[in-house]
Amino acid sequence: MPIQGRFRDDVEGWTELREEYVPGLRDLDGFSHAILIYHFHRSDAEHLEARPFLEQETHGIFAIRSPHRPNHLGFSIVKIQRIEGNRLYFTEVDMLDGTPVLDIKPYVEYFDRRDDVKSGWVDKLFTEGQIPEETIIG
Amino acid sequence: MPIQGRFRDDVEGWTELREEYVPGLRDLDGFSHAILIYHFHRSDAEHLEARPFLEQETHGIFAIRSPHRPNHLGFSIVKIQRIEGNRLYFTEVDMLDGTPVLDIKPYVEYFDRRDDVKSGWVDKLFTEGQIPEETIIG
Repeated sequence: MPIQGRFRDDVEGWTELREEYVPGLRDLDGFSHAILIYHFHRSDAEHLEARPFLEQETHGIFAIRSPHRPNHLGFSIVKIQRIEGNRLYFTEVDMLDGTPVLDIKPYVEYFDRRDDVKSGWVDKLFTEGQIPEETIIG
Repeated sequence: MPIQGRFRDDVEGWTELREEYVPGLRDLDGFSHAILIYHFHRSDAEHLEARPFLEQETHGIFAIRSPHRPNHLGFSIVKIQRIEGNRLYFTEVDMLDGTPVLDIKPYVEYFDRRDDVKSGWVDKLFTEGQIPEETIIG
């Protein structure tokens, strides 16, 4: 599992819907990316401050993406490959196998792709557009 | 309430945390944007296919951002203005007053700002970078 799926595009995953929800997938295949909201089902810890991967300092849980958070909600953007029956296949995966998906939404350029972004403590790790070597642990 | 907060930057909102969660906000103020995950508490309907605002056709619920979805989870990107005590103040609001917020995450340019995005049925509404007049209803 890469820390963030964006940096690993050769791993394909899929999420499977109950049959009753399959009509809800109609026209999602016109989008290049989807937002997945899911349950960090392997975490039963809650740390209000923690040190993320790659980082030397601790930060508040709402300033990092750690699973050990109140409500244990996870969020990932994935690249849609195809939809077949009740399965959505995607790359840029950063979820554990068996993760319970709670919602799927289309990633919409005009709402979700923001300009003039400051990324706090993360910015120093991606100086000059470089991807830190340790980002990919999968 | 604008349909999508991005197109209305003169409205400020805030979300209030229980005192016990305030340490979790530390260093979020270094980020320009936050991701809010919340409960669409005013919807008790579930429509697997629906016609969104601005659109003539119906689409599957996982290809639109309607509140009338399984699990009723909402997702917005907001622009951080400041943090004071247990309150996060932001603009680019598109939530109803009283919305229960379930999680706050930092918006990270390197994970969340995607290139080469296709936005399905939405693309035709934003031809040549124009914002549809009807987007702003607030």
